[in-house]
Amino acid sequence: MTNKKEINAGIIIIGNEILSGRTKDTNTSTIALWLNSLGIKVGEVRVIPDKENVIINTINLFRKEFKYVFTSGGIGPTHDDITAESISKAFNMNYGAHKEAYKILEKYYKPGEFNDGRQKMAWMPTDAKLILNPTSGAPGFYVENVFCLPGVPSILQSMLGGLENKIVGGDPILSETISLSTVESEIAKSLSDVQSKFLDIEIGSYPFFKSGKVGVSIVIRSRDEKKIKKCCLEILEFVNNKKIKIL
Amino acid sequence: MTNKKEINAGIIIIGNEILSGRTKDTNTSTIALWLNSLGIKVGEVRVIPDKENVIINTINLFRKEFKYVFTSGGIGPTHDDITAESISKAFNMNYGAHKEAYKILEKYYKPGEFNDGRQKMAWMPTDAKLILNPTSGAPGFYVENVFCLPGVPSILQSMLGGLENKIVGGDPILSETISLSTVESEIAKSLSDVQSKFLDIEIGSYPFFKSGKVGVSIVIRSRDEKKIKKCCLEILEFVNNKKIKIL
Repeated sequence: MTNKKEINAGIIIIGNEILSGRTKDTNTSTIALWLNSLGIKVGEVRVIPDKENVIINTINLFRKEFKYVFTSGGIGPTHDDITAESISKAFNMNYGAHKEAYKILEKYYKPGEFNDGRQKMAWMPTDAKLILNPTSGAPGFYVENVFCLPGVPSILQSMLGGLENKIVGGDPILSETISLSTVESEIAKSLSDVQSKFLDIEIGSYPFFKSGKVGVSIVIRSRDEKKIKKCCLEILEFVNNKKIKIL
Repeated sequence: MTNKKEINAGIIIIGNEILSGRTKDTNTSTIALWLNSLGIKVGEVRVIPDKENVIINTINLFRKEFKYVFTSGGIGPTHDDITAESISKAFNMNYGAHKEAYKILEKYYKPGEFNDGRQKMAWMPTDAKLILNPTSGAPGFYVENVFCLPGVPSILQSMLGGLENKIVGGDPILSETISLSTVESEIAKSLSDVQSKFLDIEIGSYPFFKSGKVGVSIVIRSRDEKKIKKCCLEILEFVNNKKIKIL
């Protein structure tokens, strides 16, 4: 068994539209925040093109490396949607019309409207398990530890809820944010001293520029609430000594 | 020499804040759109944590695989900014105060304000070349084909302009978008037929949901303007035959 504390995930964003810059990826953040709430940390994200060999290789690498793998994109009805077929190949599984998915889609569309394009959305590894889609009918699917979701952000988000009983999480990852009216170089030394006292806590420092004001958000992340509190107190101590305003 | 048409790039986004979902990455899109305008295609993006061995391995893989590599994040003054030191190690270069960067920063700050934290921003591979920062002083740097930029989106964007004479691009990648009032499954077959006639053109199909309306954007991408036009005409033909409204 994997140590509960080490439960991790990898995300694969599949789509030329992200690589061309046309579309900004928001699915990483949606999936990562949801996983964090289940106590699962994202170890790596890859954005890859709609190319079969790249998808197959990335899937086969990630499914060994991570406890859970999530893919986004490429499961629609058009010619550039090749994720389902690639996943079938990665797992050496039969690619064809999935009985249950076919039934769901047949029921979803009016008689006479279940055309070839729509039928293609039922094509996937025939032994895959389905991820129900409360928004637009066409289901996602999963094979072993690889969960395949669509690329449209609102549909992807609507499908995550249904997955919670299929995933075994860890202790939730907690975080505290302290936002300061300062610049990073003013606090770098003191923050580093605190970090060296709390080696198993992740302290991130993120400068921001909002409506003409500069500031730094310090984010303290851990599964241990008590340690986060202790760490925050140490940070607030030097903040107070330096007379830095808390925002 | 690399074939001009094959000039590509890889992007490495370094930062726990993207993996935790706290921050949505927009730098990929900024860099990719800028590279596209220079005729350079992004082949892959990886989002990786602030971990030295992961940064070193990813850099060493990408710098062989891609003509240009861009990193974003981890070059600030705090303890979690480890990109510059990791890059030094990846290239087996000396990590220390970069003379020119030190001078720039010393000049940028008022006398007495050039503290340890600020001095750390001059630490990088001592033989690196600088990428000037018109926004906030602290320069980025590059070694061979690896260009290291900060994570703050507005600063990163302001630094790209100064890089254009350092990069040899290809023929610009052109694109046309046709937005239709339809759903993907209505056009999947016809679009696939067009794609099979234009194998060297990238035709992407992207459903959207905006203010309660559904639609599909078809994006045609190529370096060959004439082929894009021909391809668009074929698409418009079936769109017309199907009496689909163009948006």
